[in-house]
Amino acid sequence: MAFTSDIEIARAAKKRPIGEIGAKLGIGADDLVPYGHDKAKIGQPFIDSLADRPNGKLILVTAVNPTPAGEGKTTTTVGLGDGLSAIGKKAAICIREASLGPCFGMKGGAAGGGYAQVVPMEDMNLHFTGDFHAITSAHNLLSAMIDNHIYWGNELGIDTRRVTWRRVMDMNDRALRQITTSLGGVANGFPREAGFDITVASEVMACLCLASSLADLQDRLGAIIVAYTRDRTPVYARDIKADGAMTVLLKDAMQPNLVQTLENNPAFVHGGPFANIAHGCNSVIATTTALKLADYVVTEAGFGADLGAEKFMNIKCRKAGLAPDCVVLVATVRAMKMNGGVKKADLGAENVDAVQAGCANLGRHLENLRGFGVPVVVAINHFAGDTEAEIAAVQDFIAGQGAEAILCKHWANGSDGTRDLAAKVVATIEAGGADFAPLYPDEMGLADKIDTICRRIYRADGAQMDSKIRAQLKQWEDQGHGHLPVCMAKTQYSFSTDPEARGAPTGFTIPVREVRLSAGAGFVVAICGEIMTMPGLPRVPSAEAIGLNDAGDIEGLF
Amino acid sequence: MAFTSDIEIARAAKKRPIGEIGAKLGIGADDLVPYGHDKAKIGQPFIDSLADRPNGKLILVTAVNPTPAGEGKTTTTVGLGDGLSAIGKKAAICIREASLGPCFGMKGGAAGGGYAQVVPMEDMNLHFTGDFHAITSAHNLLSAMIDNHIYWGNELGIDTRRVTWRRVMDMNDRALRQITTSLGGVANGFPREAGFDITVASEVMACLCLASSLADLQDRLGAIIVAYTRDRTPVYARDIKADGAMTVLLKDAMQPNLVQTLENNPAFVHGGPFANIAHGCNSVIATTTALKLADYVVTEAGFGADLGAEKFMNIKCRKAGLAPDCVVLVATVRAMKMNGGVKKADLGAENVDAVQAGCANLGRHLENLRGFGVPVVVAINHFAGDTEAEIAAVQDFIAGQGAEAILCKHWANGSDGTRDLAAKVVATIEAGGADFAPLYPDEMGLADKIDTICRRIYRADGAQMDSKIRAQLKQWEDQGHGHLPVCMAKTQYSFSTDPEARGAPTGFTIPVREVRLSAGAGFVVAICGEIMTMPGLPRVPSAEAIGLNDAGDIEGLF
Repeated sequence: MAFTSDIEIARAAKKRPIGEIGAKLGIGADDLVPYGHDKAKIGQPFIDSLADRPNGKLILVTAVNPTPAGEGKTTTTVGLGDGLSAIGKKAAICIREASLGPCFGMKGGAAGGGYAQVVPMEDMNLHFTGDFHAITSAHNLLSAMIDNHIYWGNELGIDTRRVTWRRVMDMNDRALRQITTSLGGVANGFPREAGFDITVASEVMACLCLASSLADLQDRLGAIIVAYTRDRTPVYARDIKADGAMTVLLKDAMQPNLVQTLENNPAFVHGGPFANIAHGCNSVIATTTALKLADYVVTEAGFGADLGAEKFMNIKCRKAGLAPDCVVLVATVRAMKMNGGVKKADLGAENVDAVQAGCANLGRHLENLRGFGVPVVVAINHFAGDTEAEIAAVQDFIAGQGAEAILCKHWANGSDGTRDLAAKVVATIEAGGADFAPLYPDEMGLADKIDTICRRIYRADGAQMDSKIRAQLKQWEDQGHGHLPVCMAKTQYSFSTDPEARGAPTGFTIPVREVRLSAGAGFVVAICGEIMTMPGLPRVPSAEAIGLNDAGDIEGLF
Repeated sequence: MAFTSDIEIARAAKKRPIGEIGAKLGIGADDLVPYGHDKAKIGQPFIDSLADRPNGKLILVTAVNPTPAGEGKTTTTVGLGDGLSAIGKKAAICIREASLGPCFGMKGGAAGGGYAQVVPMEDMNLHFTGDFHAITSAHNLLSAMIDNHIYWGNELGIDTRRVTWRRVMDMNDRALRQITTSLGGVANGFPREAGFDITVASEVMACLCLASSLADLQDRLGAIIVAYTRDRTPVYARDIKADGAMTVLLKDAMQPNLVQTLENNPAFVHGGPFANIAHGCNSVIATTTALKLADYVVTEAGFGADLGAEKFMNIKCRKAGLAPDCVVLVATVRAMKMNGGVKKADLGAENVDAVQAGCANLGRHLENLRGFGVPVVVAINHFAGDTEAEIAAVQDFIAGQGAEAILCKHWANGSDGTRDLAAKVVATIEAGGADFAPLYPDEMGLADKIDTICRRIYRADGAQMDSKIRAQLKQWEDQGHGHLPVCMAKTQYSFSTDPEARGAPTGFTIPVREVRLSAGAGFVVAICGEIMTMPGLPRVPSAEAIGLNDAGDIEGLF
């Protein structure tokens, strides 16, 4: 059988008009705002009209620590959504939007893979419905208004050395990481150090993804700290009077996007905050809207369960008043092997011992997730080279933990490959075991929250914070930010801060290098390692090979 | 009668679904790419299918030199389109898209005014269909790839002091006019001086607006000069291998946008290049598509006829093989008064002498336009305070020039106010007097082209170019760019370079301060005065008052 690429499968998709997809969820044509024939936003008045409806069941798809072998978290999210539909359930999936910039560095990311994809894939990797462009505009309007305020007399007394609000661009452009602005004399302002991040790293993105309404969005935008005065008093976006205009720029972007899977099931694709300095989940408004329209909503969170699921539970669910009914923890035989010490080049050979050793990683995630009071089903995302003995090793391990690991073949077979998983998830939810609680209460001190995550989730011997960082956290508590949850920024490859320490490492501490207050988004970021907020392009960027062919199709993007 | 604002009128518009507007032009639902219910792009395959159809008649709306009194060129374009429809003609208008950034400085610009507007006004002033965002992305991808090329070894030998390609943002942000990039050490590249322009000033915008097809667009993008080597050899975008990916980013933006007037007539709104360092006309693809679909197409060009119409004729028509059938020259009694020496504060008082004196400006434009071999109709855009004697003064003056000046009341009455103008335009076209020729042949030398425009259009005693500028023009001729037309960048307020010299000044020369080669767009820019390519925000930017009200409507944008 000839290999069929993701893009070939996506292009061969028999898409239905987006109105039909909306109709599956009971959304009328007038309540959809079309963007082309295969994308739409869901109109705000319709969303507002849903408030009194009951919620469907919420399923989080998360995964073991990512390895270069690939885990297929989004693929499994799509596959499970299709599987639920295939067994007769009214289901929808909620995933994040892709960032445009990185597609021109490495090859663009599909939304899912194989026969478990969301389409239109090309649009979703390019401008889509313009949400990220709107976020870029809103962010940079605030930046321009800050420098303009300084230019016209600086009434607020901003210390130009302490402007914390940078600019953003949805592009991999390392030259913009650190710049000096306002050069060239009197007419251009006051020279100062500045820089650009990539748009997904914008706090505006995090605000949009956590906001429950446009009014809430404006409140969050207004609460963003943009600078400090010489006496360290924070200056907020609302002091700059930018929050109203930013909200206007985000009015359309706030409405969730509806597209479809290859099997013509509804997919909400909305928001895409960084999974390190932000919480890495799709928008609250998309998830809450989907829960009003479908009986089962499948969503995902960035990176492995130590980062993604932890933030989903402690930030998104806490803030939005959501409680997941079931967690699907994705593992692959290949990832277990790598966690068990096998190198990527040696993944082709059967190695049951390594699989068994690597299951320590899976087991720890399982235990962590259960700690949130939510039942867990393990999904083994099947790869063609997996042997029966290897698969059995994972299943045996999970059975030993009192859970079940379901083999899934959605990449090859679409919903036919996830019917078992879907049935197991439904049975688990119907058994009603969920009793969700976040890991720590709002009232816990900020340093303790960080320490709790490090000990309870990463299994570290604690967080390492010097006195300066502790003093900063204390100051924020004194300023009224102590109730905020914590957003950890740490390598996704390990429970520890050493990306090479796969499996289930112990005997380490987590050094916190820096803390940042995202007062608009509503969390404190604890940075534990190098965080790159503006990527660069590789020596040969994929952009060089991207173009339109004679048929008008895009070449080289995937 | 209570005064009704433009925005109130626009919000009260009884818009028809965009499919109905398309149907008026014979565009099927499948050939429209909807953006919401009131905006659509026209699909590329449909555009391609029109090639063999005959063209309708092309009408250019231009104006006297702009004054603070307002001339209403776009308003008259809209009014004439509606007037042609009202007298039973199949008509469409073609206007430019608005830039988002400036709306947050001064109040946003409507598309037309009073009862001669294009809607949806708010969308058109914000993100619209994302075209400008796509242009921003394509432009900045090229910028990132240039610095990335330098970072990875600079194989092309780019002189980092001579990178001419800047970055763009659709925002008024003076702090970005002049910056140093790539600071912060080895990982961020090679520090150099750089800067941002506003998106409408991008050569990518000019390329998109002049391209006849996506293939032509890619050729133009590839031909953009981005830098020079130490020995002054030009480096092109195609050398950076950015042209294919840029075209992919512009694939959707290249398709013209369709919206509607208040009277539900079709309006193409597409492209918006600067009227100084670029040619200031809507896209060629929109105009040529409209000409295949309507019997009468009304379009406009930026600024007064000395700049806008001259570039429309010598750049857009020449490049696109278009020949206008009629020109409508817009004048107002108020503008005539200001050209006759009256100050803005004194415009309220009747002053027939000043009107008569100011008509010298109108007369010179009329003569210039006739020089292109196209019949001219003068439209007097009526303002409530105009007296009968003042109106008669303009009409008498024009009658003395062997033409007719038609009083138009579209601002107050919509198409009822432009039936006479529409009838006169149709009669003029049917009389068949048009024999269009550009002002100068392709073969004329670049310096002579500049001089010809200065003498024949501005009525200057010639262009002033020092030996360095002449040498530069000569070098470009030697490099094969001598056939290009010239794009003049000069104040729009006067035939001369002195913005205070209203009326019909004589006895001046035009100093050319700088020349730039826009090899992708396909013209040589002659800069005669200060050209601001990145605006700043005022002391109290309008953004401070912009927000959503409780009904979810936008406040403060207009």
